Amino acid sequence: MRKFSAFITSSASFGHYFCSNRFTPLLHSPPPPSIIRHFTPPMAAPEDSLRKALADKLSEVENQGNQVRALKAGKADKSEIDAAIEALNSLKLEKASIEKDLQATLSSSEGSGNREAFRQAVSNTLERRLFYIKSFNIYGGVAGLYDYGPPGCAVKSNVLAFWRQHFVLEENMLEVDCPCVTPEVVLKASGHVDKFTDLMVKDEKTGTCYRADHLLKDFCNDKLQKDLNITAEKAKELKHILAVLDDLSPEDLGAKIKEFGITAPDTKNPLSDPYPFNLMFQTSIGPSGLIPGYLRPETAQGIFVNFKDLYYYNGNKLPFAAAQIGQAFRNEISPRQGLLRVREFTLAEIEHFVDPEDKSHPKFAEVAELEFLMFPRELQMSGESAKTIRLGEAVAKGIVNNETLGYFIGRVYLFLTGLGIDKKRLRFRQHLANEMAHYAADCWDAEIESSYGWIECVGIADRSAYDLRAHTEKSGEALVAHEKYPEPREVEVLVIAPVKKEIGLAFKGNQKNVIEALEAMKEQEAMALKADLESKEEVEFYVCTLGKNVTIKKSMVKISKEKKKEHQRVFTPSVIEPSFGIGRIIYCLFEHTYYTRPSKAADQQLNVFGFPPLVAPIKCTVFPLVQNHQYEDVAKEISKSLTAAGISHKIDITGTSIGKRYARTDELGVPFAITVDSTSSVTLRERDSKDQIRVDVKEAASVVKDVAEGVRSWADVWETFPHHSSASADE
Amino acid sequence: MRKFSAFITSSASFGHYFCSNRFTPLLHSPPPPSIIRHFTPPMAAPEDSLRKALADKLSEVENQGNQVRALKAGKADKSEIDAAIEALNSLKLEKASIEKDLQATLSSSEGSGNREAFRQAVSNTLERRLFYIKSFNIYGGVAGLYDYGPPGCAVKSNVLAFWRQHFVLEENMLEVDCPCVTPEVVLKASGHVDKFTDLMVKDEKTGTCYRADHLLKDFCNDKLQKDLNITAEKAKELKHILAVLDDLSPEDLGAKIKEFGITAPDTKNPLSDPYPFNLMFQTSIGPSGLIPGYLRPETAQGIFVNFKDLYYYNGNKLPFAAAQIGQAFRNEISPRQGLLRVREFTLAEIEHFVDPEDKSHPKFAEVAELEFLMFPRELQMSGESAKTIRLGEAVAKGIVNNETLGYFIGRVYLFLTGLGIDKKRLRFRQHLANEMAHYAADCWDAEIESSYGWIECVGIADRSAYDLRAHTEKSGEALVAHEKYPEPREVEVLVIAPVKKEIGLAFKGNQKNVIEALEAMKEQEAMALKADLESKEEVEFYVCTLGKNVTIKKSMVKISKEKKKEHQRVFTPSVIEPSFGIGRIIYCLFEHTYYTRPSKAADQQLNVFGFPPLVAPIKCTVFPLVQNHQYEDVAKEISKSLTAAGISHKIDITGTSIGKRYARTDELGVPFAITVDSTSSVTLRERDSKDQIRVDVKEAASVVKDVAEGVRSWADVWETFPHHSSASADE
Repeated sequence: MRKFSAFITSSASFGHYFCSNRFTPLLHSPPPPSIIRHFTPPMAAPEDSLRKALADKLSEVENQGNQVRALKAGKADKSEIDAAIEALNSLKLEKASIEKDLQATLSSSEGSGNREAFRQAVSNTLERRLFYIKSFNIYGGVAGLYDYGPPGCAVKSNVLAFWRQHFVLEENMLEVDCPCVTPEVVLKASGHVDKFTDLMVKDEKTGTCYRADHLLKDFCNDKLQKDLNITAEKAKELKHILAVLDDLSPEDLGAKIKEFGITAPDTKNPLSDPYPFNLMFQTSIGPSGLIPGYLRPETAQGIFVNFKDLYYYNGNKLPFAAAQIGQAFRNEISPRQGLLRVREFTLAEIEHFVDPEDKSHPKFAEVAELEFLMFPRELQMSGESAKTIRLGEAVAKGIVNNETLGYFIGRVYLFLTGLGIDKKRLRFRQHLANEMAHYAADCWDAEIESSYGWIECVGIADRSAYDLRAHTEKSGEALVAHEKYPEPREVEVLVIAPVKKEIGLAFKGNQKNVIEALEAMKEQEAMALKADLESKEEVEFYVCTLGKNVTIKKSMVKISKEKKKEHQRVFTPSVIEPSFGIGRIIYCLFEHTYYTRPSKAADQQLNVFGFPPLVAPIKCTVFPLVQNHQYEDVAKEISKSLTAAGISHKIDITGTSIGKRYARTDELGVPFAITVDSTSSVTLRERDSKDQIRVDVKEAASVVKDVAEGVRSWADVWETFPHHSSASADE
Repeated sequence: MRKFSAFITSSASFGHYFCSNRFTPLLHSPPPPSIIRHFTPPMAAPEDSLRKALADKLSEVENQGNQVRALKAGKADKSEIDAAIEALNSLKLEKASIEKDLQATLSSSEGSGNREAFRQAVSNTLERRLFYIKSFNIYGGVAGLYDYGPPGCAVKSNVLAFWRQHFVLEENMLEVDCPCVTPEVVLKASGHVDKFTDLMVKDEKTGTCYRADHLLKDFCNDKLQKDLNITAEKAKELKHILAVLDDLSPEDLGAKIKEFGITAPDTKNPLSDPYPFNLMFQTSIGPSGLIPGYLRPETAQGIFVNFKDLYYYNGNKLPFAAAQIGQAFRNEISPRQGLLRVREFTLAEIEHFVDPEDKSHPKFAEVAELEFLMFPRELQMSGESAKTIRLGEAVAKGIVNNETLGYFIGRVYLFLTGLGIDKKRLRFRQHLANEMAHYAADCWDAEIESSYGWIECVGIADRSAYDLRAHTEKSGEALVAHEKYPEPREVEVLVIAPVKKEIGLAFKGNQKNVIEALEAMKEQEAMALKADLESKEEVEFYVCTLGKNVTIKKSMVKISKEKKKEHQRVFTPSVIEPSFGIGRIIYCLFEHTYYTRPSKAADQQLNVFGFPPLVAPIKCTVFPLVQNHQYEDVAKEISKSLTAAGISHKIDITGTSIGKRYARTDELGVPFAITVDSTSSVTLRERDSKDQIRVDVKEAASVVKDVAEGVRSWADVWETFPHHSSASADE
């Protein structure tokens, strides 16, 4: 997780990075410089040259100003002075013009105006139609906590059902369901207790807390966007800081904050030095207060600790995958970015356990022909863009480390596009070497472009044996797999046999330490000792538990290599982990499916969510055209058939115009609408095309079921049934 | 919630009970005396008379012993002494026989031997097949936390899917999804911060915590079951304590613990006085430590705080229901009863908002003819048993308070029996008056009988306006509904108009207090004042904020009644709340569907879970009869069709006998098995009947889909296809 990366310079055992592929928000930690460059290639050049031109023009203005003053002081000719003033004014105009250009460049470089207006339009619709609600709103809410309201909840439940179908059922995964409350020892083993931190600063007077990197980031961005007078060099320096923000030590971050004179945003008070704040919600299990616990920051650990049972359940065979859907929690210091950075969220995680010596996948051929945007390390380093690559080629060329990792990348692509994510705004970005944990073999993020930029929504990592080893070490329970050899294999093993009697006589009270030190020797050391003893009869030998050398005689130890039959290989499996941030995927889906179109009278823009039926919160609305009992009875009859067919729907019997009712249902992303305008047949309308057909009352539910479940396409239905083209039934 | 009930004698505002229909474990608080009597009617009489007989016999033995000693001391005839000794021995034999009977009565009164053996058999199977796993087991686990392993997780997900279909979709409920992390203010309003407690005692030396009522309960049960020498009176006293356990104050509970000399079970150390321990897991939101929060103890509050938005979403119309499925948390002092009392669990809750003046339900007729075991208050009070009542009759006779409550009782019945709960072991028990909150209109628990007794699995309560009012009061946001009158209604309203000038002159600095006191008068008081002023010109008037009387003159205030037009009625809706403990329902389902049958060789008992296809973790297993490529290819083809049809299944290609493989799949509750024993047609076996039919390979998946989804019955399939009766394909 990149979140960990910045502050772990002291912990060599984790390498530079801690566990870089745990699902983390892209914007939590800015991408490395090469990516920044990629994000802003068209802007960097004009901005630099404009800043330079502006600086040049400023000094020209200054020079000319000095000249005017000199002429005046020297009581020069009025005509000469006037000419100089005119030149000065003209230079000032030129300067103003460059400032304007620079301003325009800076604001367009953000694309921020459009993006924010779009985001606002989507958010307004989402909030008004209760896709989301700020949690505990009547009490003022809590930052970073949101509810899914009825349509949002239905979308989420559809996304999760599809996830289960697409991954768990399709791959026969072992799904588990573990508690959120987790005892400390588990998260100590995983490293979260020690390393799951962000750097925080406090307002020294009020105690208000801020994320240190956020303040520095805001300062740099603000300077870059609003201060026209900084030099191109200064701009470069600020951009460099933004790029390496995530790699700054607490000391460096503190020094920059001091250097720039950054103060608390609300009060302008001075700030404390940055210090780490653990992002896990802490609690206590049981009444004694003696069992510290946390709310899990991810669901994966629940799977790792169950490895032994799950392996047994799978008939002691590899590979197999376990999966879990559940809540995860991160006590963010100051949540931003609305629905993308929240304190409680739903994760769906897969841990696919595989023999490290065989990462082939039997079903890889099924995804090998897929082509989509990939953004390998090399393209990022060379400042190029993501490009379309065939997955089979990416694996064959070693761009993607192995078939199993490739298989999951392909399955994730199918999952996301199946939900309605725009494939042109989806890319798989490989982690750079410095983003990955030292133990990780390879790691790719499915990134989806939104108004916030490219958002990491799924992480797909080959984490090697790291997690199982960490829990083996902490718990003492061997989380390993066995491979029986078809026939026993003969292997040479080192045998070190201390002669206890001799050692006892020589070392008395220290004999145990000496014996243990002898037995602990690795092969090379032992064979060297054997050779030395044979040539010299006795040698000095360092016993670390005694902290000194002792003299070992030839008679004290027998060292040999013996042949032995081994029946099985015992090893720690590698784990390949696709980890899905369900809330982020859903938010991006909202942005990708949202569009507006003019009302019939062209007097307003109407909102539409173009959800595929698979994820639409409701599949169908039923409208009696006018309020009468006959039509309402037909509506109820159709409703009953839809319920029996398991198709979620709603009857809208309000008296408003059918056009308004269509607009309302379009805004909820309902793909089909049935208008009851006679007692024998009804009008069925498709949301995006606004096409309308006539269907028998008795047939209506089953036609909707077929198109909603993808058994029939709308095109097919459109061919089959008579078309309806009455002004009465549309806007 | 009965959990609250014991300790809330000081809080008049909540009445005697706090919120008695929140989903709570039955055994958390023992049932009231009448129910205890009901639970043990056949035992009480023989036990009492045996205890009496034993006491009588003991004194006979004593008397006879004294007589023997007297004869010996008086040097009586040897024959006389021998006769007396013989009589004594005979009495001792009689005493031993009574002791044996009493022992037998006591152990059978628990039915405990059988029940525990049965529970152990179910648990063994559940644990061995990973339906459940003790959470974090490699670290020794944590009491009260369990994982669902793969089959358990699948069952849970099926139960929740059916719940969504049966309630949310069928009733067009508004489903929401709110966070687990909840700020304190919300749970302060709901009463949980102050009242959600159990009484705890501590080992005075080690600090180990125990639930006070558990210790007292254990002591009483132990005494009753193992001490044969207590008198019938003492037994009665102990039973009374068990019955009123939940109503004991901390002081009474502490006094009983002292009186009986109860010590810490593990160390025999003395215990502290009982004191309340809040059962919510506490945490802190954000980095400042200034926002206290808790893990929600129920999901309902998330719905209540959103009432206003949901009401708007529903077009400002009542009735409507909101629903939520999610995790809830209770930091139990010392969890017992395995899977029935856990610290984290899944709740599914419905809040149906309704006009308090109209609790009819348009669909009540659909459930009115249902008949099932009901246990109304009156039957409980009179010591009778639950009896079968038609739901329509129960509502018509007022046994169930209203149609909407009745409708949900009926729907819950259909839900539970649809899952496979045995209708003979399901009853709806009405809360007694002293179990209910003062504000509740009526409350029924769906109780399911298990080896632990009758377990409360669903609570269905009419909570009146309590919750919305509590949040209105705390938040200041009016959580109310409006009913527009067809035509405005004329109403008389009280108008109190203090004459500020006069009051100002008379009371100067106190004028504000006087004005407020006047305006605060209720109608009756105001009209009395008006009458007094008219007759006496001036009167003494008590101003509570001044703590004294002041003299009010006629000129100081105008009081009148004026006619006003009202356009709508504003009221707080009632809420009817069915609350489902999903884990408990699932556990009871395991017990109800579990059975054993002899293997073919009759040398062992095989375990079967007879799940209906709806909840079965996997619908079908596919077995190639022998290990060869042809059969395995057919198995894969069928597997692919099953996946496409959305039918969860597993291929078992292990080389063990087909009988063993059937036993394995029966133990997981898989309803159908396909044995590939040719390349053209296969054998399809039904789990419970062990019936086998022959089906074409191409047809196999669709036949399984039809029977698994209830489109066709097995009987129908059995009629249609050729039967298979080969020894080769079964055990």
